[in-house]
Amino acid sequence: MSCSSCLYKRVSMFSLFRGKSSCVNLTKMFYLVGLGLGDVKDITVRGLEIVKKCDKVLLESYTSILTVGKEELEKFYERPLILADRELCESNIDELLKEAKDKHIALLVVGDPLGATTHTDMLLRAKELHVETQIVHNASIMNAVGCCGLQLYNFGETVSIPYWTDNWKPDSFYEKIEANYSRNLHTLCLLDIKVKEPTEESLTKKIRQYMDPKFMSVKEAASQLVQIIENKSDTELSKQSIAVGLSRVGNPDQKIAVKSLEEMEQLDLGPPLHSLVIPAPNLHPVELDYLAQFR
Amino acid sequence: MSCSSCLYKRVSMFSLFRGKSSCVNLTKMFYLVGLGLGDVKDITVRGLEIVKKCDKVLLESYTSILTVGKEELEKFYERPLILADRELCESNIDELLKEAKDKHIALLVVGDPLGATTHTDMLLRAKELHVETQIVHNASIMNAVGCCGLQLYNFGETVSIPYWTDNWKPDSFYEKIEANYSRNLHTLCLLDIKVKEPTEESLTKKIRQYMDPKFMSVKEAASQLVQIIENKSDTELSKQSIAVGLSRVGNPDQKIAVKSLEEMEQLDLGPPLHSLVIPAPNLHPVELDYLAQFR
Repeated sequence: MSCSSCLYKRVSMFSLFRGKSSCVNLTKMFYLVGLGLGDVKDITVRGLEIVKKCDKVLLESYTSILTVGKEELEKFYERPLILADRELCESNIDELLKEAKDKHIALLVVGDPLGATTHTDMLLRAKELHVETQIVHNASIMNAVGCCGLQLYNFGETVSIPYWTDNWKPDSFYEKIEANYSRNLHTLCLLDIKVKEPTEESLTKKIRQYMDPKFMSVKEAASQLVQIIENKSDTELSKQSIAVGLSRVGNPDQKIAVKSLEEMEQLDLGPPLHSLVIPAPNLHPVELDYLAQFR
Repeated sequence: MSCSSCLYKRVSMFSLFRGKSSCVNLTKMFYLVGLGLGDVKDITVRGLEIVKKCDKVLLESYTSILTVGKEELEKFYERPLILADRELCESNIDELLKEAKDKHIALLVVGDPLGATTHTDMLLRAKELHVETQIVHNASIMNAVGCCGLQLYNFGETVSIPYWTDNWKPDSFYEKIEANYSRNLHTLCLLDIKVKEPTEESLTKKIRQYMDPKFMSVKEAASQLVQIIENKSDTELSKQSIAVGLSRVGNPDQKIAVKSLEEMEQLDLGPPLHSLVIPAPNLHPVELDYLAQFR
């Protein structure tokens, strides 16, 4: 596909970079680069410069996913990427960090690099090993959730909703939702992601086996919430309470739906990632007006 | 200044854009583009493409500021920008939105475009006027605050600390800090910004006069907090409570300092913007270790 506006873009982009005299300061370093939430073009200009110039670029693959895969990123960056799983990022991180003493290494992370504890840990470890680090921030669901019209400063503590199993149905996150609700605050619920998780069998038998990746949907989260509510005698929330379902935030095909939790149990919001918001009971008029368009 | 690595960058950036067949879908539209927090290169690739191709680009100048000014942005984008003040964004927004029916118009906003109510309002107004809109997310202080090592999901409600005057010393934000603290949650305090604010005189005399722009420092915020604490008989926080001061987050020269509120009253963290965090009383070991480097 080609069009005159594309041509214009190519020319202007070229002149943009041709004219610059500043350059990324690349003392040997370990970069944590946020990719934002949408697709390949949601990396920042600074982030892209780093990716282009690093000796080695890894793509973190287990705390979140981008709506596009590794291949599209590689095509856009014109370089190969190495997938970094939990083992590499947690158990084998020292090797990687030590490499960053004489090489420029970047770890690409979906959203903002400091949304997950793993990466803070990594930076601490780097400090111990005297490895220089640099963070390139980007949008994360923690701020992009503002796209549903609920004001960011009216959000309370964020919670994570984990996948239940037959024997393990934790619901401690629910108390936090209730505590926010009673203070008239919204709750952002981050939904569970299982990527390269060892199977139960592999844990007991010491064979390395992994489950298929799965990403909790708004539908599944709503269903778990309804079950919790049904088992509580004294709770302010009900099956009829309003929730906001979001999928693929930041992507052109993002979806936002406002429904009761009960209705949300039947809702298909398409491919991952999904997030759920439980709004405060009393909303600001602008919040109400904004949500109304997603009913 | 020229160096071989810069040359490499220019060439690779050129080939990057030359090779792409995708182009930004520019049906006539009103774009809200987040600029992130640092300097000119913190815009996303998608955002930059939009800026390059729009008929008119405005820079929102009163909810936040970038560490670089309009001139540097214009140089980087190779196009003029129009400064958009509060009057334009609030009272005269309809004119601008109507223009976006036959033109591509972008409003650039520091941080993420949906951090402030103004922009949600703008999107609602656009819908009423049947103007298409698109949001380009970016990092905001709401997620980049993770750079101090405090975990984002341990933050409670965000508060804003307003400048006090001789006759007006509101402290309702303090209750929110206390409520977070008692639930063992951190509080991000956004510090007041006064840009193109009408003087008191101009309000009464109907002459258009504006105050010099001012940006609350960590020092000023700490001083107001200490005054509130000194006037309360029953509060969990004290002058000795630990606070985290942050300045110019996302910029290479960002500063983070961990001190008691009392010590923070004497601290100069340099040019704006500043933010303050009141950490929860009981921190996770990783949070403690991370904060320790800023003591």
